[in-house]
Amino acid sequence: MKRTAFFISDGTGITAETLGQSLLAQFDNIAFRRLTRPYIDSVEKAQTMVQQINEVAASEQMRPIVFDTIVNAEIRDILSTANAFKVDIFSSFLAPLEEELNDRSSYSVGKSHSITHSANYMERIEAVHFALDNDDGGRTRHYDSADIILVGVSRCGKTPTCLYMAMQYGIRAANYPLTEDDMEHLQLPSSLSKYKDKLFGLTIDADRLAAIRNERKPNSRYASYAQCEFEVREVENLFQRENIKFINTTHFSVEEISAKILVEKGIERRFK
Amino acid sequence: MKRTAFFISDGTGITAETLGQSLLAQFDNIAFRRLTRPYIDSVEKAQTMVQQINEVAASEQMRPIVFDTIVNAEIRDILSTANAFKVDIFSSFLAPLEEELNDRSSYSVGKSHSITHSANYMERIEAVHFALDNDDGGRTRHYDSADIILVGVSRCGKTPTCLYMAMQYGIRAANYPLTEDDMEHLQLPSSLSKYKDKLFGLTIDADRLAAIRNERKPNSRYASYAQCEFEVREVENLFQRENIKFINTTHFSVEEISAKILVEKGIERRFK
Repeated sequence: MKRTAFFISDGTGITAETLGQSLLAQFDNIAFRRLTRPYIDSVEKAQTMVQQINEVAASEQMRPIVFDTIVNAEIRDILSTANAFKVDIFSSFLAPLEEELNDRSSYSVGKSHSITHSANYMERIEAVHFALDNDDGGRTRHYDSADIILVGVSRCGKTPTCLYMAMQYGIRAANYPLTEDDMEHLQLPSSLSKYKDKLFGLTIDADRLAAIRNERKPNSRYASYAQCEFEVREVENLFQRENIKFINTTHFSVEEISAKILVEKGIERRFK
Repeated sequence: MKRTAFFISDGTGITAETLGQSLLAQFDNIAFRRLTRPYIDSVEKAQTMVQQINEVAASEQMRPIVFDTIVNAEIRDILSTANAFKVDIFSSFLAPLEEELNDRSSYSVGKSHSITHSANYMERIEAVHFALDNDDGGRTRHYDSADIILVGVSRCGKTPTCLYMAMQYGIRAANYPLTEDDMEHLQLPSSLSKYKDKLFGLTIDADRLAAIRNERKPNSRYASYAQCEFEVREVENLFQRENIKFINTTHFSVEEISAKILVEKGIERRFK
């Protein structure tokens, strides 16, 4: 039977979720049912929450794990009456931080993912629109203002990676697909060659690429292993010849690909 | 002077960043310089890291704050020699969790944001492509497989919200802009009316909308306050008349909007 884990917050729940997921991921042998409960920001909601937790504890005969980032003391007190194993994230760390920083925590709710706290929130949204407008080589005239331009064969992961970098870090990422035409010339398209320092290559194993393309266009030449293998080989040759750094995305998530690109290119995240 | 904070990880650094940012956001009076250092996964990198931290401590005459999620004991030991105030996230919580779960942590690196750990990682990427393909009312024939369809005036935040819900939660979100034509009819477009249970409305203050539209098309009728005010009023009337739940996005981030929509619609996140 699955063990139930709650991620509870008076804000979005993102911090409780992220930390809770990371910790639970360390326990491979246990299957978890994960429930996020954001905006638990009133006495009534907290009481209902306690009831839900207790019902789960009773029906599963095992107390749930609760990861919480509740800031309000009254709500936290109510939650602490629940029959659960509590990982109280804020109270574990805020007091020592207060001492080190010689300052009082503001104990204000939902700060970290709010629009007002983040000076460059609008920059992040602009970066998302930049990624959309400069997706798939559709436009190249704004490459001047790009922080990075991803290149690679069709469906190797360029678009989700650009969107993630934009959303998470406010980085302006364009992408340009290297299509068969470009490959026959065996050289970098002219629209890219003057931005060589912004280029970063993505590649992928041919069999994985064929599987992805088959989802979209089953049994097409585009999705055939032979075509995928040819494109990947040519593009990797191009990367090497032109000294374009690249990574193979096959075994990595967009989060990992993005983090690796930032390290490789020496780009700092744009933080609030 | 700014106080320096490091987010250090042997993986992507996302967990260290997210928790560190949340904690630092509680200290309004202090300005922080934030540096993320992912993939610190070798003895050499750890030693270089210690050197960097010590240099910052010396030059700023104030030890940096270090948030870390290092799993490997050898690397953690090296890091602990740095002149820093350490918030050691994993070691604070893993031992108590091991006891509660009656299981040993696998102490494996970079689990939570990896492709292999996440059973539905491909589902998330598919959801991103779904959001892109079904953006801006471009196609309506896949609404059958949408989890949610966001509606609202142009530039009220539909697209970034759809992409965030897809990327973060694997939710298939389409969006449909209510344009002037639709408003004059004062009824729901026929392509939407049969999916009424999937609809969710976004609205926005007219002056904020005018500011956003002016960035794109300065001094246009589209961006005028009068036009924005008219559109917002008509659309809010439509939402009320048709009993479509909606929220005003003006003061919320995409993270907050997404979390609120999931609560309102009772949609559970699709977790790994």
